[in-house]
Amino acid sequence: MPAETRTQFFETGSPAEPIRLRDGGLLPGARIAYETWGTLNEDKSNAILLFHALSGSHHAAGRNPGIEGVGPLWQDELHAGWWEDMIGPGKALDTRKHFIICGNYLGGCYGSTGPASVNPETGKPWGSSFPAVSAADQVEVFSRLLDHLGIGTLLAVVGPSVGGLIALTFATRHADRVRNVIAIASGFKTTVLNRLILFEQILAIENDPHFHGGDYYDESPPLYGLALARMISHKTFVHLDSIERRARRDVVQPDDVLAWYRVRDQFQSYMLHQGKKFVKRFDANTYLRIIDLWSRYDATAEGDAENPAELFKRARQAGQRWLVFSIDSDFCFYPEEQTELVRHLEKAKVDVMHITVHSDKGHDSFLLEPDLYTPHIAWVLSR
Amino acid sequence: MPAETRTQFFETGSPAEPIRLRDGGLLPGARIAYETWGTLNEDKSNAILLFHALSGSHHAAGRNPGIEGVGPLWQDELHAGWWEDMIGPGKALDTRKHFIICGNYLGGCYGSTGPASVNPETGKPWGSSFPAVSAADQVEVFSRLLDHLGIGTLLAVVGPSVGGLIALTFATRHADRVRNVIAIASGFKTTVLNRLILFEQILAIENDPHFHGGDYYDESPPLYGLALARMISHKTFVHLDSIERRARRDVVQPDDVLAWYRVRDQFQSYMLHQGKKFVKRFDANTYLRIIDLWSRYDATAEGDAENPAELFKRARQAGQRWLVFSIDSDFCFYPEEQTELVRHLEKAKVDVMHITVHSDKGHDSFLLEPDLYTPHIAWVLSR
Repeated sequence: MPAETRTQFFETGSPAEPIRLRDGGLLPGARIAYETWGTLNEDKSNAILLFHALSGSHHAAGRNPGIEGVGPLWQDELHAGWWEDMIGPGKALDTRKHFIICGNYLGGCYGSTGPASVNPETGKPWGSSFPAVSAADQVEVFSRLLDHLGIGTLLAVVGPSVGGLIALTFATRHADRVRNVIAIASGFKTTVLNRLILFEQILAIENDPHFHGGDYYDESPPLYGLALARMISHKTFVHLDSIERRARRDVVQPDDVLAWYRVRDQFQSYMLHQGKKFVKRFDANTYLRIIDLWSRYDATAEGDAENPAELFKRARQAGQRWLVFSIDSDFCFYPEEQTELVRHLEKAKVDVMHITVHSDKGHDSFLLEPDLYTPHIAWVLSR
Repeated sequence: MPAETRTQFFETGSPAEPIRLRDGGLLPGARIAYETWGTLNEDKSNAILLFHALSGSHHAAGRNPGIEGVGPLWQDELHAGWWEDMIGPGKALDTRKHFIICGNYLGGCYGSTGPASVNPETGKPWGSSFPAVSAADQVEVFSRLLDHLGIGTLLAVVGPSVGGLIALTFATRHADRVRNVIAIASGFKTTVLNRLILFEQILAIENDPHFHGGDYYDESPPLYGLALARMISHKTFVHLDSIERRARRDVVQPDDVLAWYRVRDQFQSYMLHQGKKFVKRFDANTYLRIIDLWSRYDATAEGDAENPAELFKRARQAGQRWLVFSIDSDFCFYPEEQTELVRHLEKAKVDVMHITVHSDKGHDSFLLEPDLYTPHIAWVLSR
């Protein structure tokens, strides 16, 4: 049984000094939920900042049976950390050597200030009025968290999937605070295909009659819309062959969260099960905020650079070293996207290593196959 | 200006002799809307039966300003035939030589009996009670249409996209009635990826609060759900690069059919425009019926065969000749699917020619680039 971890909270901003978001939104203060593993060394040189994926949380390792204020969304399946196999003594992120920090995104639903939080000015949940948050906004809040922890320079920023986008923007907006960048199955600029798939998900949620523009916290949430959104994304996370295999194998439990009536076969039943499971543990407004961030992501713009060369010049000047992973069967962030990132890094003469892992698990490989990533990550971090 | 064509109607079945559908449904008679071009020769050996795509109609060529009973769904954009460039004097389907027939599918919304038709037993639209229709059911109804027209053996069955699936099943269920089979950008057995994408579309419609299980004809139809479904499918029809190009170029007209509020950019606006345009001209229940047919399509099962070898043995014994087209940029019916079909045909020693056309238009190439298909089709039909 892994050790128990406790979520901590960091408060930043105030009504007098609100957090100004890039789209023009203002937050009169925000709270970031985070966890840490390992011990910060004396010269504070062993810190690693980890960013989670779209529907992930800051609870990456250990056991956490409950988070203040999160309520029933903190389902049993979340109590174990999502990267348990990668964080711990002797693991890729080695808690004997490193101090690892992971925070829930601003706009999140696992303890950080988000659409379900109460707006102190109205006494009601933010809902539709919670502002849009960009990758650069996330980076601003997380740099404040580092200040709060007294950490100047990070040994590394690490991020799989959407977390890799935030890691990239952290490394380019705060180049001097980052020595190593590890981006796994991530990208550089959101592709047309992903923008389409993300837009479908936005509309799936907005079409739900319970959505009410995002002001649904007094009533039933838009469960059908969120479940459909999850199903739309699910096919990009998992290898298609394995969807068919799982659909044949898995015993799908009856489930009364949603009651769709038109199920033809075990395959459709399996897909519905994925959607239904998800709506128990996630908030639709948070999903929309992170999807919107992802859909608009362009590393150059997020870094306020004129072009990729200017963006990555900062990385070279800071002497950063990059490790970029591709998964050959990834249908979410296609290998071509990491190749594009690496091409820009190489052009800017940044020290970069590009590794393709071969897997039949698709995008989810980063969660399921620690051995494919551990040797290179451990090696890079111990350089 | 192309010549005007008139839709004709064929009635089959009756309360005493209902049409029995494979899923157990019964229809106390049905009407099939169809058009013809060219002249049936004396020995009735020059007939070609053409099957339309998912959202197509029987109006493949000429100009048709209105169809009895179809009402406002018969939008201006439909008045020109969808395969105008392929049907006519000297064209691939040559009206100087051939007699071409195209019918709207059973369950359709362009004149054939479908969910919007009145159930004579209740005096109300069928709606949710309209039965599921399989490819084999379509073939049964269309073989009756041939009987009605006095046609024994067809010179060819021709079908692009979903039409290719119906053509395949016609050719294998009625092998002796078919001399040539022309399947364009079509398949053999619906893939996992397509079943996922089709299921997403089913749920997009069913999640619409106006859907009411399919009984919406007295009130507002599920426009948002149908529009989202169309957007989900649109990315498979059109090459992604061209979506981005078109989004930049097209002036998107303001449109009051639907009023989504969350549009970030011209790209999203373009996608919404695709969805909005579609809901003016199509019925959601028909869309569900055809999608359901497609999702469950397996040529072997539709042909009541034990395996592909047995299925295509009939084609060989009948001396059929097949022409199968792939489009290299097709994201809807992937080239692998036609390769699978061709492999089965070759194994069964059926005379088959497999042609891949190279296009940057994706699946829609079959509508847009007649020159890529005309020479081979004309050659095969004149053999």
